[in-house]
Amino acid sequence: MQSDPFDKTGRSNTRWQQSLLSREVRESRNRHRAAVLWFTGLSGAGKSTLAHATEKRLFELSCQTYVLDGDNVRHGLCGDLGFSVEDRSENLRRIGHVAKLFFDTGVIILSAFISPFSQDRAFVRRMIPAGRFIEIYCSTPLEVCESRDTKGLYLKARAGLIKDFTGVSAAYEPPTDPELIIDTQQQTIAASVEEIVVLLVKRNILQL
Amino acid sequence: MQSDPFDKTGRSNTRWQQSLLSREVRESRNRHRAAVLWFTGLSGAGKSTLAHATEKRLFELSCQTYVLDGDNVRHGLCGDLGFSVEDRSENLRRIGHVAKLFFDTGVIILSAFISPFSQDRAFVRRMIPAGRFIEIYCSTPLEVCESRDTKGLYLKARAGLIKDFTGVSAAYEPPTDPELIIDTQQQTIAASVEEIVVLLVKRNILQL
Repeated sequence: MQSDPFDKTGRSNTRWQQSLLSREVRESRNRHRAAVLWFTGLSGAGKSTLAHATEKRLFELSCQTYVLDGDNVRHGLCGDLGFSVEDRSENLRRIGHVAKLFFDTGVIILSAFISPFSQDRAFVRRMIPAGRFIEIYCSTPLEVCESRDTKGLYLKARAGLIKDFTGVSAAYEPPTDPELIIDTQQQTIAASVEEIVVLLVKRNILQL
Repeated sequence: MQSDPFDKTGRSNTRWQQSLLSREVRESRNRHRAAVLWFTGLSGAGKSTLAHATEKRLFELSCQTYVLDGDNVRHGLCGDLGFSVEDRSENLRRIGHVAKLFFDTGVIILSAFISPFSQDRAFVRRMIPAGRFIEIYCSTPLEVCESRDTKGLYLKARAGLIKDFTGVSAAYEPPTDPELIIDTQQQTIAASVEEIVVLLVKRNILQL
C-alpha cells in the first residue's frame, strides 16, 4: 500500500482491498464455485445424514465446505428462538444470512433444516445469485419418517409433548420447483450423494 | 459407507462422518490453524481497514480467511437490531456465534466491531479454545478518531442526531489484557499487519 489509508483517500483504499478478495478471487483459488445446497424435508427424511455424507464427498474432492444444521445453530446463534411460526421464520432468516456469509467466502455450504415454509426458503433463494441456490427436497413420506423416528420425536409429538411439530401439529409446504428431489427410502445415501455431485458438475459449480 | 445410515446404527454413522471432518482435519488441509482475530476500538480507530489489510496479507499467505464487519452483518443477520445496550449485546452474541461457526471450518476469522463492552468480548472469548482468540485493541484516541471522522458520524453524534454513539454518548470499556494493542496513529497499517502476522506465527497459528 502506497498511501496512508487514513487520509482523505483512505476509504477508496479500503474498498480496493475488499474487491481484491471478492468471491470470484476466492473461488478461483478454491477451484470450485460457491453454492448453497439447501436440504428441506420432514424430521427423519435424511437431510442431515445426506448433507454430511455429501460434505464428506465434496471434501474428498478438495472443496471448501460446511454443514449448517440444528446441532451447530439451534444451540448457539438461534438459541433464543423456539418453534412458533414467527420463531421458525426468524431462525431461517438468520440461517439464510449466515449461509450468504459463507457463500461470499467461496464455500459450498450445505444447510439441513426442516425449513417448512415456502416463503422462508424463497427468502434465502433470493439472497443467492441465480444458479447457485440448489434446493434439495428430501421427499421421504411422513409414515416412513415416523417409522424411523431416530430421535424419538414423533412419539413425543403424537403424545402431545412437543408443540408445533412439523408433519404432526405444524404444516410442511413441499417445494414446487426444487433443483432435486431425493426420497431416501428409494435410493441409498451413496447414490444420492453421487446424484448431487453430478448436478453440481452440470451446474458448473464443480469440475471433476 | 457399508451400512444403511437409516437403520438403528445410523446415528453413530452420522457422528463418525462429522468427526471425520473435524476442525483439525480441515486445519491440516489448510496448513494453518483456525483463529478469531477480534479487533475492538472506537469508530474511526482503524479496525475495519486493519482487518481488511490483514486479511489481504493472510490470503497472500494462502490462508482461508474472512472479515466480519458492519457492512456484511448489520444489514443482514443483525438488521433487526439497533444500538441500545441490549441490542449491542445481542448483536455481539450473534456475531460471536457466527465467528465460532467459521472457526469450526478452520478459517482465520477477522471481526471488526466497536464491541464496547468487556463482558460481550469475554463471552466470545469463552466460546473459542484457549490461544485462538486474539483480541486486538485499536487504541487510537478519541480525539484522533473524531478528527478523522471518515464517515461523518462524530459530527452527527455531537449534533445529537445519533443516539448511543460510543465515545460521545455511550461508554467504551477498553480491554484490560488484549493480545495486542495497536494505535494506528503511531504506526502504519503495513507495520501493524506485520505485527499481527508475527504474533500469529508466535502463537503457532501460522507457519511462514
